[in-house]
Amino acid sequence: MSRPLLIVLALAGLARAAADDAAPLDGFTPAAAATERRYENDLKAIPSPERMRAAMEKLAARPHHVGTAAGKENAEWMLARFKEAGWDARLERFDVLYPTPRERVVELVAPGRFAARLEEPQVAGDPTSAQRAEQLPSYNVYSADGDVTAPLVYVNYGLRDDYDRLERLGISVKGAIVLARYGGSWRGIKPKLAAEHGALGCLIYSDPADDGYATGEIYPDGPMRPKDAVQRGSVEDMPLYPGDPLTPGVASVPGAKRLPLARAAVLTKIPTLPISYGDAQPLLEALRGPVAPESWRGALPLTYRIGPGPAKVHLKLVSSWDQHPVFDVIARLPGAVTPDEWVIRGNHHDAWVNGAVDPISGLVAELEEARALGELVKAGWRPRRTIIYAAWDGEEPGLLGSTEWVEAHADEIRRNTVAYINSDTNMRGTLGMGGTPPLERLINGVARDVEDPETKLSVWKRRQLGEIVKGSQDERAELRKRGDLRLGPLGSGSDFTPFAAYAGVATLSIGFGGEDDYGVYHSIYDDPSWVMKNGDGDFHYGRALAQVAATAVMRLADADLVPYRYGAQVDAFEKWLGDAKKLLDKKRDEAKERNLELDEGAFQAASDPRRPTYPPPRLDVPPHLAWAPLENAVDALRDAAKKYDDAAAKLDGRKLPDARVAAWNRALLGAEQKLCDPAGLPRRPWYRNLLYAPGAYTGYAAATLPGVTEAIEARRWDEAEAEIARVSRAIRAEAALVAGLADEMEKAAR
Amino acid sequence: MSRPLLIVLALAGLARAAADDAAPLDGFTPAAAATERRYENDLKAIPSPERMRAAMEKLAARPHHVGTAAGKENAEWMLARFKEAGWDARLERFDVLYPTPRERVVELVAPGRFAARLEEPQVAGDPTSAQRAEQLPSYNVYSADGDVTAPLVYVNYGLRDDYDRLERLGISVKGAIVLARYGGSWRGIKPKLAAEHGALGCLIYSDPADDGYATGEIYPDGPMRPKDAVQRGSVEDMPLYPGDPLTPGVASVPGAKRLPLARAAVLTKIPTLPISYGDAQPLLEALRGPVAPESWRGALPLTYRIGPGPAKVHLKLVSSWDQHPVFDVIARLPGAVTPDEWVIRGNHHDAWVNGAVDPISGLVAELEEARALGELVKAGWRPRRTIIYAAWDGEEPGLLGSTEWVEAHADEIRRNTVAYINSDTNMRGTLGMGGTPPLERLINGVARDVEDPETKLSVWKRRQLGEIVKGSQDERAELRKRGDLRLGPLGSGSDFTPFAAYAGVATLSIGFGGEDDYGVYHSIYDDPSWVMKNGDGDFHYGRALAQVAATAVMRLADADLVPYRYGAQVDAFEKWLGDAKKLLDKKRDEAKERNLELDEGAFQAASDPRRPTYPPPRLDVPPHLAWAPLENAVDALRDAAKKYDDAAAKLDGRKLPDARVAAWNRALLGAEQKLCDPAGLPRRPWYRNLLYAPGAYTGYAAATLPGVTEAIEARRWDEAEAEIARVSRAIRAEAALVAGLADEMEKAAR
Repeated sequence: MSRPLLIVLALAGLARAAADDAAPLDGFTPAAAATERRYENDLKAIPSPERMRAAMEKLAARPHHVGTAAGKENAEWMLARFKEAGWDARLERFDVLYPTPRERVVELVAPGRFAARLEEPQVAGDPTSAQRAEQLPSYNVYSADGDVTAPLVYVNYGLRDDYDRLERLGISVKGAIVLARYGGSWRGIKPKLAAEHGALGCLIYSDPADDGYATGEIYPDGPMRPKDAVQRGSVEDMPLYPGDPLTPGVASVPGAKRLPLARAAVLTKIPTLPISYGDAQPLLEALRGPVAPESWRGALPLTYRIGPGPAKVHLKLVSSWDQHPVFDVIARLPGAVTPDEWVIRGNHHDAWVNGAVDPISGLVAELEEARALGELVKAGWRPRRTIIYAAWDGEEPGLLGSTEWVEAHADEIRRNTVAYINSDTNMRGTLGMGGTPPLERLINGVARDVEDPETKLSVWKRRQLGEIVKGSQDERAELRKRGDLRLGPLGSGSDFTPFAAYAGVATLSIGFGGEDDYGVYHSIYDDPSWVMKNGDGDFHYGRALAQVAATAVMRLADADLVPYRYGAQVDAFEKWLGDAKKLLDKKRDEAKERNLELDEGAFQAASDPRRPTYPPPRLDVPPHLAWAPLENAVDALRDAAKKYDDAAAKLDGRKLPDARVAAWNRALLGAEQKLCDPAGLPRRPWYRNLLYAPGAYTGYAAATLPGVTEAIEARRWDEAEAEIARVSRAIRAEAALVAGLADEMEKAAR
Repeated sequence: MSRPLLIVLALAGLARAAADDAAPLDGFTPAAAATERRYENDLKAIPSPERMRAAMEKLAARPHHVGTAAGKENAEWMLARFKEAGWDARLERFDVLYPTPRERVVELVAPGRFAARLEEPQVAGDPTSAQRAEQLPSYNVYSADGDVTAPLVYVNYGLRDDYDRLERLGISVKGAIVLARYGGSWRGIKPKLAAEHGALGCLIYSDPADDGYATGEIYPDGPMRPKDAVQRGSVEDMPLYPGDPLTPGVASVPGAKRLPLARAAVLTKIPTLPISYGDAQPLLEALRGPVAPESWRGALPLTYRIGPGPAKVHLKLVSSWDQHPVFDVIARLPGAVTPDEWVIRGNHHDAWVNGAVDPISGLVAELEEARALGELVKAGWRPRRTIIYAAWDGEEPGLLGSTEWVEAHADEIRRNTVAYINSDTNMRGTLGMGGTPPLERLINGVARDVEDPETKLSVWKRRQLGEIVKGSQDERAELRKRGDLRLGPLGSGSDFTPFAAYAGVATLSIGFGGEDDYGVYHSIYDDPSWVMKNGDGDFHYGRALAQVAATAVMRLADADLVPYRYGAQVDAFEKWLGDAKKLLDKKRDEAKERNLELDEGAFQAASDPRRPTYPPPRLDVPPHLAWAPLENAVDALRDAAKKYDDAAAKLDGRKLPDARVAAWNRALLGAEQKLCDPAGLPRRPWYRNLLYAPGAYTGYAAATLPGVTEAIEARRWDEAEAEIARVSRAIRAEAALVAGLADEMEKAAR
């Protein structure tokens, strides 16, 4: 699914892009590093743009969403490719709830009548847009069924601030159907908030201001969303749990205990359908009531009004609530030294329709990595650790293939995983890097060794300079001073989530982007014709992604000592602690100020009697929270990280006994686990990582220290203090582990 | 002309709105204050909404721009009203250059053909919109004539930042016709900058994002600008000088020395015409080239592109370059004690078409003030000083009537004026207050004594609370702590300019607004029908304006000691000095950062080869400037102001010998003159006030310390230092005057 343009995951190398054979590598002896770099250079020459293009034309030739013959054929075709390249590969099947629509109705019933088309027409010069019979109709999977007729209310992006604004305007969505525009969050947040506020139904449309004509020429003349194109997509409440809605925490295998449909809390409470701006325009035109605030206005040629009504809408959705199989392709290159240490790499293969960009643009890079690694094996290279390449099915409806696979193998994954590296959509631009901080130095090092196709700088350097040009003064200072670019914290939106947030393993999410405009996301027009005209049609960024990902995989698979470094983690935790304190201070200032303005009568004074606004509710002023445990825990980690990173650096020159290194590695694989609690986050136990989770009301964007910050957001002060204590214990446990390792390594280095 | 919504002039009173008869008044003995307050309360009861409505229906019944019979009839009708009310009134005539269009052509000649309509249709239910024969066609007065055909370039608002952006995109407007949208500045800046960048012609259109359908329902269903409505308006280079283009600095009376047309530097260099969004849309649709940056996009249903071309436009303008008379109505109530001290009040009477809002909404309040003051005279009140009420003609083309009158009587005005109080457009909302700081305390006091029609708070309190709700944390703190609301500095856009910036007398600009949306500015639809449906149709804010203005006039006319206070001036100068320093620091940071990024190659790295951007030019790094003279001058004024304000407060209890007070008053009237230099600002000698002027590249918005800040903007460092020295001398001279008076008053108070 990935995120379209709006939320950028992360950051990117020194002008020297070709790897310098003499430069040291974390976790390698000098001799091993030299060998490694030779293999890496061999590897980087292999991925072929021509093969990527051919693979895209094969894999995106037909609609291949969950349950299709084309999807299964794709899985089998990839299976054959892995085998051909010398991998030990197989399909893993899970059976998941996957509703598809039988009846969809959106119609304006007053004033006047208008029936929404809910269809995307084929366009000239785009052969796959004509595959009507195989295309999935536009819908939001995991919406509740329903048949409702009610007044319409326009709610902007349909997020919390928007509902606060509606309250100030005296407008309730209770008993109404809301019309929200796409953007600003995971789409599942929109029907969730609408239902929490009493709405009966939810329509989500793509405003041309966000990815339509306002942003660029529309398809087929340009890359942006045409009038009738619809963004399909899941509305599963992923911040509660991803994967099969009926099997949270267990794999959807035959015999698995499944929830009854009525107890699947991740389904929406109200019927929800996505529509095009062609279909939304008559609905918006029929609204009256207050003129929408400036930031709520889109680019349709009309006065955006909020309602409620007089527009009355009939919304009906009837689905087939069937189970369908998903097929993950799982391929292994066994490790020569420690086969029970795994480096996992994945990208999904299912799409909403043809999905040439999402996900095939990333998948074809992964397939070329696999072929290249196979070539190296044929040339004599043997990875120290086991490498697992996965092509996930069912990512679009809710990370189904990856989540079920992680749930199926959770114990092994937790015990064995060195790192999981995810990609998804890939386009021209700069390297986005998100992930868990101990991998920050590793991926920065890799990014310094790969050349940007357009500028011939390293992809690291291009990213750094690009961020400097865009950055604030403080950001620029850090970009110039700090050796490495920070990794963005992981929220959700692709298959990294079960690894990072549920299994609690070191995780990276990478991909290029930022130059190509991409307005056909989740529509029938995301297809090879679009890519060849508007995207990375020469696959130079496909090759760059393959070079970055495969180099990272090799370094992680080959290093004697697992190349984690902890300084970046301290940096990250400090920043997040600072953010949490600022959030509390902001809530305190906001509550005091608001209550003072209520006392002053300022809100009444500022209200225009012809367009009245109402005072907001009085707020309880947050207490001061006891941050000390968390401050002390971060201090302990800082000491431990400094010792560890110094000790590890000293070791890199030495050849040490394998058994010792093996023991340290084993211990290192447990470090990220210390940050997890099997009890999970409050009210969402599936999420075990106490340091980052998708925000409960953002979805894509990460909440850092989620137990703490979301308790503050919800004004649960006692819970916030309890969560501070819990996360402090977790960080202390990790600090103890890291400090212990550092002591041992320090002794060994003497 | 006034400014539409976009730029707010100022700020607003304690909950007690009815004047407390026992409260003291600056400049009055307690007994005199009590008498004054009784008269003020009598006065406030007189202005009649019904009479205002009748006056609007009379004065806005027909188009009455400069040179029309209707305009002259209006002047004569007002003359009769003043006389009826007991004023000594007459018309003063000036003969000014006032070109009107004979031929206007705007057409797309490639690709395809489209001829712009350039006409505003009548609308049902709005009788005056049908007065086609008398309406002035839509045009920009003081545009050069021309006949050019050239590729089109879209330049957003056409301001300096926009041209910087174009340069980054590698786009030149040399030899092109630019299409700019209204907003962001005085409209005359747009053709000025276009010509400076080598353009051959300039079109200015009203984008629906700014005052059309995006912002509210369009007329006649709502208040906003319909598809074919055009914003007429002057494009005189007013920041160079306002008034008759042929007679800068002298009155346009018979025999006055007039410049040849070719030497009138305030005329545009290139032909310029305003168009509607109905006419702009086909032009914008025909553009190709880069997609406009997000902040450049308006609300038309199209992809905003910049060009140049392939759209090619033919623009032709032929005008009659005739002289026309303007008729100012000047009415006097002679002062009983010091007739050679004047309190002047003005509002213009000419309009672009019917002009019910602009300017009649303000004018009808002024006429009711005049009637009310006349009633008080009949009841026995005698103002101590002379009161002059003016209804200015020719404001719209360039403050013609007021400027010529001030130029005609400059010596007397400089010598005699206690204050000039201006109004223009008036609507529902909060009281805007701009002006020279010594009047801050006076107008804040008045605003505390007038009731807001909607909330029944004082208009001061409503303004303060409204600002608190909108303000930043720092602004809120000041709003709560500071006794008075600050006056916005005066730029230009109405008749206060010749008083403040040329004559250098104490000036106020007041008016209500902020609630009514006003999208028909300078179109044929600004008429009584519009006001009754969308504006202050019950004239409650007309009455409030009359109450504020007339109360201020009375206090200024009746106080024994002219009620200036200097603390606010120190506050203002300190702030402006801080702003100037920040501007220099910002320029320094910006130059260093840009040059560093050029050295780093960051701009090339950030450029997308498919949509290239070019590095900006290297900047010279500003030197540090010697601020000390200005800091010392402000310190001197601070000491003087403190002494003066304390001494004046002590005196208010006493009855002092008239001759002494008369001498002090005479000296006080010279204080603001000390801030002026007859040599004027660099390159624009008409502007003599060294503390505030309309910004050379903003027009409406004030430049404070204009000699200094504009030299910094233009990177003329030596000039900036020379200007610091000059303004420092001026402030020191004022400080010396004020300190001298304070000493005398201090002695008298012992």
